[in-house]
Amino acid sequence: MSQFDQVSVVKQANIYFDGKVTSRTVKFADGTRKTLGIMLPGEYEFGTDQKEVMEILAGELTVQLPGSEEWISISGTGEFTVPANAKFKLKVTQVADYVCSYLDA
Amino acid sequence: MSQFDQVSVVKQANIYFDGKVTSRTVKFADGTRKTLGIMLPGEYEFGTDQKEVMEILAGELTVQLPGSEEWISISGTGEFTVPANAKFKLKVTQVADYVCSYLDA
Repeated sequence: MSQFDQVSVVKQANIYFDGKVTSRTVKFADGTRKTLGIMLPGEYEFGTDQKEVMEILAGELTVQLPGSEEWISISGTGEFTVPANAKFKLKVTQVADYVCSYLDA
Repeated sequence: MSQFDQVSVVKQANIYFDGKVTSRTVKFADGTRKTLGIMLPGEYEFGTDQKEVMEILAGELTVQLPGSEEWISISGTGEFTVPANAKFKLKVTQVADYVCSYLDA
């Protein structure tokens, strides 16, 4: 799927880490939402409220999931899931384009 | 208007200047399109194909419009129009959130 149809897009950007991580919120008719984001090279720690599925569309990064000592590397495309109310770390080495889906389960 | 409704959003980001300028394309039912973008601090030159209306939602920048020697400064919100097939320069001093509308006229 190259585009999301019949959605609403929030005009204002979500801006984190001085703009090194930014995203736009997309709302779907079924009440769910996703963010479309960009991460510039850097090291970040994020916290989740809901369960998140991170789909990497492009870029290069490593991710350390909650409770793990290991770093998983993704170059190009990839995906990982983070449970709700958790923290995860990212080291981005090449500009990353992503879609984050927020899930209730 | 805080969000765009009943639109399509292209999943893949538009990435320029090593990710310092990025945007997402939003397509409207009437066939028009806008991009929602972020510009990090830096100096940029852009070229237009269509006429563009740039609405600045947040940030701080100066812009030099085609054929002008002057720099116009925008802090917070603002708007400027660039004709088709022209070049304009921007100096962004604080992360800028923008909506660019592409017009045929």
